[in-house]
Amino acid sequence: MASKKPLKGMIDVTPKEAILRREVQSKIVETFIENGFFEIATPSLENIDLLCSNEGGDNEKIMFKVLKRGEKLNLENIKNVSDLVDMGLRFDLTIPLSRFYANNQNDLPTPFKCFQIGNVWRGERPQKGRYRQFIQCDVDILGDDTVTAEISLIKTICDALSKLGFNDVEIMINNRMLINELLSEYNLADNAEDIMIILDKLDKISFEKACAEIENKGLDVEKFKKLYERIELLEKMDVSELKTVFNSAVVDDFLKIIKVLNNAGYKVNYDSTLIRGMGYYTGSVFEIKDKSLGLSIAGGGRYDKLIGKLIGTDVAACGFSIGFERIVQILLENPSEVESNVEKYVIFVDNASTVQYENMLDYMKEEQQKGKVVSLVSRKKNVKKQISDLSNLGYSKFFNTSDF
Amino acid sequence: MASKKPLKGMIDVTPKEAILRREVQSKIVETFIENGFFEIATPSLENIDLLCSNEGGDNEKIMFKVLKRGEKLNLENIKNVSDLVDMGLRFDLTIPLSRFYANNQNDLPTPFKCFQIGNVWRGERPQKGRYRQFIQCDVDILGDDTVTAEISLIKTICDALSKLGFNDVEIMINNRMLINELLSEYNLADNAEDIMIILDKLDKISFEKACAEIENKGLDVEKFKKLYERIELLEKMDVSELKTVFNSAVVDDFLKIIKVLNNAGYKVNYDSTLIRGMGYYTGSVFEIKDKSLGLSIAGGGRYDKLIGKLIGTDVAACGFSIGFERIVQILLENPSEVESNVEKYVIFVDNASTVQYENMLDYMKEEQQKGKVVSLVSRKKNVKKQISDLSNLGYSKFFNTSDF
Repeated sequence: MASKKPLKGMIDVTPKEAILRREVQSKIVETFIENGFFEIATPSLENIDLLCSNEGGDNEKIMFKVLKRGEKLNLENIKNVSDLVDMGLRFDLTIPLSRFYANNQNDLPTPFKCFQIGNVWRGERPQKGRYRQFIQCDVDILGDDTVTAEISLIKTICDALSKLGFNDVEIMINNRMLINELLSEYNLADNAEDIMIILDKLDKISFEKACAEIENKGLDVEKFKKLYERIELLEKMDVSELKTVFNSAVVDDFLKIIKVLNNAGYKVNYDSTLIRGMGYYTGSVFEIKDKSLGLSIAGGGRYDKLIGKLIGTDVAACGFSIGFERIVQILLENPSEVESNVEKYVIFVDNASTVQYENMLDYMKEEQQKGKVVSLVSRKKNVKKQISDLSNLGYSKFFNTSDF
Repeated sequence: MASKKPLKGMIDVTPKEAILRREVQSKIVETFIENGFFEIATPSLENIDLLCSNEGGDNEKIMFKVLKRGEKLNLENIKNVSDLVDMGLRFDLTIPLSRFYANNQNDLPTPFKCFQIGNVWRGERPQKGRYRQFIQCDVDILGDDTVTAEISLIKTICDALSKLGFNDVEIMINNRMLINELLSEYNLADNAEDIMIILDKLDKISFEKACAEIENKGLDVEKFKKLYERIELLEKMDVSELKTVFNSAVVDDFLKIIKVLNNAGYKVNYDSTLIRGMGYYTGSVFEIKDKSLGLSIAGGGRYDKLIGKLIGTDVAACGFSIGFERIVQILLENPSEVESNVEKYVIFVDNASTVQYENMLDYMKEEQQKGKVVSLVSRKKNVKKQISDLSNLGYSKFFNTSDF
């Protein structure tokens, strides 16, 4: 007999959580649509070559790969995994989006404002709140190289978070071009990717450990220390002074995003230490934290070169990802006071006659037309447990067969 | 460079279709909830042993299997596929539901009325409207062996179809126990499964071909012919006469389902030729056709033994599956007249000043609070194409930066 449990790192969603998940998703979708984003969907499986393009970073290593089928599968003479597999489960939505855009571009508006909500799979070691299958929720603007993309995205994400009850948030923004300028200044530009990965870890590891990693990579620790001092100094600087430090065209756009959004009531702050993990970011990077919990609940950035690398033609691109699973987790642990105000009735059925059944269906029709939930449920011996289970799920009124 | 196309038999969903899919899903979900069904979700991946339990019929043969990872994968000395894989993508939602119920039973109401909407994967040869990844939409009642289950399910599915515009439908019902009685009468009970599979094909293959298949299986063709004559005779009989033919307890319940639903306005007919493909059905089987198109759009039945075979304890079970993809296909080919009545505006942004951006955001806030959709879009050189693309997607009013 097979195990009753779901696979390691994956979850069964029971009714209470399913209700919350649907509510969270519908509030997010509502906000995306209200702000002019179109939904798209791509298959869960993609060609293994696309997924192994080297743009997925470490996620490629933890991909679930699908065995070839039929004649394509030859079990003799297998040298490596690539002889065995032809597709993989997507580990993010960004690579599928890039392929989607290449495939459908001619039928889409330019710029293309879109969102995709769907499962992704990563075979990493499961941790609390980190699953091997989880929902990702991405919103992107393709074909817009102006700050309109950043402004529209940050506004939209903040509106969605606010609708979900996350009103006390901190929006941090930085720009990879500014970081690159600093790296050039300290002659570290050739190792930009390595250094950024280590800088990005600094909220999790100590500065000493970061320096050790720099040394391991054969890089100049002294230069790295100076770079970091500089980054910390910038952190304390008033943004208006950034112009004195960096290329003014980049800074002008950067300040415009910050100013416009702050004046509209969105609290956006420059964070010189914000790097973000993925190698493909080329410009703005952003992250949103819930202040009281100190947890990151959304993040994103501009990735103008990724689509070109995957499909051959550069397309300006900027995107945001909402931490859907983390938000669900937070809301499960902090249930809101607001209960659904739909009235929910149960009719317990016990040896009903044809006429009684007909009366029940008539009653259901009537009440359901008024928007009520009415459930026909076979009455069991332990009706007390039935009532208690259904009360927990929002049912408040219970009828018996003799009422009909 | 990897291909731009999705994998064979899988689809990219573009905005227009995505809007329809979300609408169809939300109408279905609304109806399920209104009728007291709770949503659940299970992972896309399940243990390979569970999926190879032999209850999935031919679907097991076309399963997508996932390669083992890390140390578990040993490329030396591979004898068969089972050395290579440890999980598979689900090919239906019924087997995952059975595992889910075994795993969570204690926390769920009894009977448990639930629905699950999610992707399933089948590596079969793609055909028009048949994909290798598609959405399945199942509604089930577990732990209820009375006709309340059948009545509640058929009512709910018909309500959902009606909300989707399918009002002229034919609901056919039969019962495997009645078929089994006939098989016993002709001494064919020992080969029930083979015969039912062949009977089930009779809407696709000729009677001659069916007889040939019977002969191939080494079964008595003459008996099969008599059985079929009998089934055809029953087809013409008034249902009230069934009592004279079959075990009266089974018939009593069967007639009750038909009578109650017909009196409530659902057109349910006895169909002696209805068998349904899966081996696990034990009682009622049903199917719903759209009359004008002649296409099956939903089907299901009672499967009281399946959960027991998978998890060791019998649980009465009855379920229905809506042909989600077929319904989407039909609605795409027959677009309804009803357009969304939400007003949708675009603001074309072209070199906006900080103040103009702020005015745009103010305007958006105001209009969005009234329920309007307002999209900030960078203006491109070919603004005519932008306007035409966005008009096709429901946008009706276009502002320029100079308006702000």
